[in-house]
Amino acid sequence: MIILMKTGCTKKQVDHVIAYLHEKGLGANLSVGKEATVIGVLGDKTGLNKEHIEVMDGVEKCVPIMHDYKLASREMVPEGRKVKVRDVVFGGPELVMIAGPCAVESEEQITQAALGVKAAGAKMLRGGAYKPRTSPYAFQGLEDEGYRLLRHAADAVGLPCISEVVDPQDLDVAAKYCDMVQVGARNMQNFRLLREIGRSGMPVLLKNGISSTVEEWLDAAEYILSEGNPNVVLCERGIRTFETATRNTLDVSAVPVVKERSSLPIIVDPSHAAGKRSLVTPLAMAGVAAGADGIIVEVHPNPKTAMSDAAQQLTLPDFQQFTQEVRKVAEAVGRIL
Amino acid sequence: MIILMKTGCTKKQVDHVIAYLHEKGLGANLSVGKEATVIGVLGDKTGLNKEHIEVMDGVEKCVPIMHDYKLASREMVPEGRKVKVRDVVFGGPELVMIAGPCAVESEEQITQAALGVKAAGAKMLRGGAYKPRTSPYAFQGLEDEGYRLLRHAADAVGLPCISEVVDPQDLDVAAKYCDMVQVGARNMQNFRLLREIGRSGMPVLLKNGISSTVEEWLDAAEYILSEGNPNVVLCERGIRTFETATRNTLDVSAVPVVKERSSLPIIVDPSHAAGKRSLVTPLAMAGVAAGADGIIVEVHPNPKTAMSDAAQQLTLPDFQQFTQEVRKVAEAVGRIL
Amino acid sequence: MIILMKTGCTKKQVDHVIAYLHEKGLGANLSVGKEATVIGVLGDKTGLNKEHIEVMDGVEKCVPIMHDYKLASREMVPEGRKVKVRDVVFGGPELVMIAGPCAVESEEQITQAALGVKAAGAKMLRGGAYKPRTSPYAFQGLEDEGYRLLRHAADAVGLPCISEVVDPQDLDVAAKYCDMVQVGARNMQNFRLLREIGRSGMPVLLKNGISSTVEEWLDAAEYILSEGNPNVVLCERGIRTFETATRNTLDVSAVPVVKERSSLPIIVDPSHAAGKRSLVTPLAMAGVAAGADGIIVEVHPNPKTAMSDAAQQLTLPDFQQFTQEVRKVAEAVGRIL
Amino acid sequence: MIILMKTGCTKKQVDHVIAYLHEKGLGANLSVGKEATVIGVLGDKTGLNKEHIEVMDGVEKCVPIMHDYKLASREMVPEGRKVKVRDVVFGGPELVMIAGPCAVESEEQITQAALGVKAAGAKMLRGGAYKPRTSPYAFQGLEDEGYRLLRHAADAVGLPCISEVVDPQDLDVAAKYCDMVQVGARNMQNFRLLREIGRSGMPVLLKNGISSTVEEWLDAAEYILSEGNPNVVLCERGIRTFETATRNTLDVSAVPVVKERSSLPIIVDPSHAAGKRSLVTPLAMAGVAAGADGIIVEVHPNPKTAMSDAAQQLTLPDFQQFTQEVRKVAEAVGRIL
Repeated sequence: MIILMKTGCTKKQVDHVIAYLHEKGLGANLSVGKEATVIGVLGDKTGLNKEHIEVMDGVEKCVPIMHDYKLASREMVPEGRKVKVRDVVFGGPELVMIAGPCAVESEEQITQAALGVKAAGAKMLRGGAYKPRTSPYAFQGLEDEGYRLLRHAADAVGLPCISEVVDPQDLDVAAKYCDMVQVGARNMQNFRLLREIGRSGMPVLLKNGISSTVEEWLDAAEYILSEGNPNVVLCERGIRTFETATRNTLDVSAVPVVKERSSLPIIVDPSHAAGKRSLVTPLAMAGVAAGADGIIVEVHPNPKTAMSDAAQQLTLPDFQQFTQEVRKVAEAVGRIL
Repeated sequence: MIILMKTGCTKKQVDHVIAYLHEKGLGANLSVGKEATVIGVLGDKTGLNKEHIEVMDGVEKCVPIMHDYKLASREMVPEGRKVKVRDVVFGGPELVMIAGPCAVESEEQITQAALGVKAAGAKMLRGGAYKPRTSPYAFQGLEDEGYRLLRHAADAVGLPCISEVVDPQDLDVAAKYCDMVQVGARNMQNFRLLREIGRSGMPVLLKNGISSTVEEWLDAAEYILSEGNPNVVLCERGIRTFETATRNTLDVSAVPVVKERSSLPIIVDPSHAAGKRSLVTPLAMAGVAAGADGIIVEVHPNPKTAMSDAAQQLTLPDFQQFTQEVRKVAEAVGRIL
Repeated sequence: MIILMKTGCTKKQVDHVIAYLHEKGLGANLSVGKEATVIGVLGDKTGLNKEHIEVMDGVEKCVPIMHDYKLASREMVPEGRKVKVRDVVFGGPELVMIAGPCAVESEEQITQAALGVKAAGAKMLRGGAYKPRTSPYAFQGLEDEGYRLLRHAADAVGLPCISEVVDPQDLDVAAKYCDMVQVGARNMQNFRLLREIGRSGMPVLLKNGISSTVEEWLDAAEYILSEGNPNVVLCERGIRTFETATRNTLDVSAVPVVKERSSLPIIVDPSHAAGKRSLVTPLAMAGVAAGADGIIVEVHPNPKTAMSDAAQQLTLPDFQQFTQEVRKVAEAVGRIL
Repeated sequence: MIILMKTGCTKKQVDHVIAYLHEKGLGANLSVGKEATVIGVLGDKTGLNKEHIEVMDGVEKCVPIMHDYKLASREMVPEGRKVKVRDVVFGGPELVMIAGPCAVESEEQITQAALGVKAAGAKMLRGGAYKPRTSPYAFQGLEDEGYRLLRHAADAVGLPCISEVVDPQDLDVAAKYCDMVQVGARNMQNFRLLREIGRSGMPVLLKNGISSTVEEWLDAAEYILSEGNPNVVLCERGIRTFETATRNTLDVSAVPVVKERSSLPIIVDPSHAAGKRSLVTPLAMAGVAAGADGIIVEVHPNPKTAMSDAAQQLTLPDFQQFTQEVRKVAEAVGRIL
């Protein structure tokens, strides 16, 4: 950390800051320039509260130069982490395709979806049981019954399955039925939920918040990792921008940025980013070209009757076409699909 | 709702949409223009899924013209709602001043804070027990013990008290110790928490998410109201913008916008918006001038030792000065402080 | 356009609006619903001022349902426009690669760059002469001499060249030396400049503003087209978001969105979006995978001495590697590079 | 400036950076910590290119700790600058009220407006002659004739007048007719225009860009000041956010932030920020409470016929009421209106 002193600060103020650092067991490196006086802090700053220093007399501001996350950092596992969910591996040469409906709506619907996506090459089945919805009057999911139907359909076709969990209290039942749990954008900073998932050890797909930075996202992942659970896969699902032509904006640059800074695998969700069927394929292709380790995409046997996100779900024939398009790009960048 | 058909849509496509509406018990009003064909939907659209229509052949898009929230709307209680917490009334002529430290840190600290803010005219004591923090390695609050110490200090000076609740599982203990609970920015769309608070009937201060719209905020309030709890006070606490000189940007226009659209009282939080002590007073004055029903402000007996948010907390003498400045504006706009 | 009346509006107010529309030669289609009264406007609305209606008594708001741009729309040229700059064609099967330094710095520098990028397969040479810089104390470009040196280097290797123009007064000299002019992000809404370029008929590369929507961008293109110049190529160069790990965020979804809504070719600028060399290749690949018609990329013979944007410019060997990587994706999506 | 070296950088890399600094006549202060190696740069960094350092081997990033603007800084004129336009003074005890229509539409309209706003206490007349509009098909202003009519009306009532200038070529005619020129949000970074205004010495009202930071705004002001023109007044006119209930979001915190960092006076524009008449008064009051030196507000004798911005312009009776409301807050904060 760097401490920038105010223009015109006194020697006494500088000495006070340095004494404070020494008291905390830290070293200080003083630079007195014509324009600015700067103190570099040396040593383990874990216990240091930056804000205490910022309120000292003569201090202009503190500039952190290191991120807070450690276990999620690239430095910790330079070769990259692999996350295994049954026989599916995130972070390896294979591009992992996760597909299925936005929400589990009925046994028939999820079973049809499972058969279709499996046939077209998906490696994991998705389906929402608890649906966080902006309005209390919108369909909120089949809840526990949704988890059960998803498991049933997944088993029928021999795929692992994933579903969102929105509250720590639901984690036990989600863990009973799902192979991997998903934390949605609205819960990226639901720290209690993150800690509980950390303790459970379950594989988790952690989506980014719609206005979070990559650093905040990796801090959120750190909550899970710091509880002893390394099975974290990140999922870029779009950020809120001023653009109105799309529901959200897929931040493809998050893929190479995460690859540089973190050891965690990262996949993209073109469906939520686009909010519109016709954009799903180009965005998936862009994500794969940028280096994503997989894709999660919404597929519904009959989107016209879907109880949520109808506009962005692919039909089963769409999905077949989709995998063919994506495969071309995957192969061009040396990935297997 | 308005349905805009695609340029060049066929009569058959239009008829199909209208038949679908009739099937749902709704009327349709067709406008065939040179540039566009538009269908106005008549009747109670509660059960209608906009997305089903958007995926029909020939449909360009659906434009909702009414908001989803009902109980939170101005129309429902045109004269405005009042929320009472013991003898404090939000939404009346009096400007409600809530003050106290970011986090409860010790019995001595919260007691000193309580004495000081009471003496300077605060009407409610605040203090965080569960602190959602970006990094898992930062101070997370005293948890249940924090609630207990807050209650104790509040009783000692005869003030009601408020504290944040971050998970439905903590609601019982929060309700035992606090007169009002707070839902923070990160939990504005934690729908499970909102519903549980709705069921509890407890007075609640609902902060806006950092990148939410007023409409999404009122939809979130509707989750609480729709469970039968009308005791909702909104709190504008700043939004994320590109500005780096402040932690967040206080959206003062949210105050008159909420007043127009909703019956709920609204207060402002200049401390979190500013993130910097020197900005707290002008922002509070701006909020009051714009029509806010109250202020929540961070005050600490010794910010230099505060375990969180040190840079933005006022000292007790600062707070006395602060109330005097704010009072001038309050009186200018006809409010009592 | 749809006119939404206020809840509780009177018949007299509705009649007044309809009479106003008739006076303007427009038809009206009235929908009286339980929740809302809506008037659909029929006919050519070109001369109609939406704001006049919004201030009428009883009117809640007007909802435009059509965009303002016409010549830039897809409907106008459904098969897509092609823009030809000497023998380079934007919008055809070939992916157009434009490369060169951020700024022209010297004869030697631009000549070396021209030789290098030509050898690696670039089809057009770029180089800035007028550099808009945030601070007045930063290097502002060689101005007219920069255009001259660029032309000279381009001719030496037989490539067409492009450079930015920042003011209508410079257009004549830019037109003398360049084959195509560029309008930068800061000037996307410099309408005088757009009109002058429109009148000149010169091929133009129009970048998006950092917080503009696609609709505003196409409106800006319409300024050029409406003066009789159809030679407009769009360039997505990143938008401002909350992410701090990149200079801007490349909005790859703008590529398929523009393809759906407009007939204009669109390319991407991974250099400005990323602001960092290591991200340039994955972002270019993503842009091509999403359907871009070309790429503009910053290449400098010696970035370590570059007078601007040093961190994001590729070296000549980098650029050779870059074209090989991009070519793989281009071929996967059926484009020639 | 602080140079952060990469984890694992070599001594040779560090020495190389230090040698480079010495070569540029700068000192270096090395801090070798367990986590990070940091080099503080000492001396006058005006000629130093941060990006050259960032591309050196072993360098992670450079962290600037000082802003680029100098003349616009608070340090330069700690007591604050005053800007005089005839007998109107910005930055003194009096709150400057500027009022008039969005656009000059006719002699009758601007004359009526002038009479009305003068009578209600305005100190300067505004009126647009060149109107930057998103669509080429919208009303673009009366151009030079607009300036002439504005002058005529202003003289008739004895007020100074202000109008926007959108291109350097128009500056001469604007200077002939106006007492102060305005640079709009879209031109905040039209550096050529800023320089020309700087050379002209004319008083100028510089609005912020809709997604600019305060630092970028002050850098833009520096362009004018650095040409020898100190007569710069800033105007906060709203920023683009995700909120849809307002046209833009008035950033009131920009007022105290500018007061801390800059010596320049600052006023607010509630009309453009709000985009809606009913919000203009509360936003103006908020701006004044936050410390603004004045207000610019749109007033039209008959908004129902206004050719632009009809929805946000006050009528003359509205404006009388408006000044009374604003005066109460002005007096509460010790300003004269």
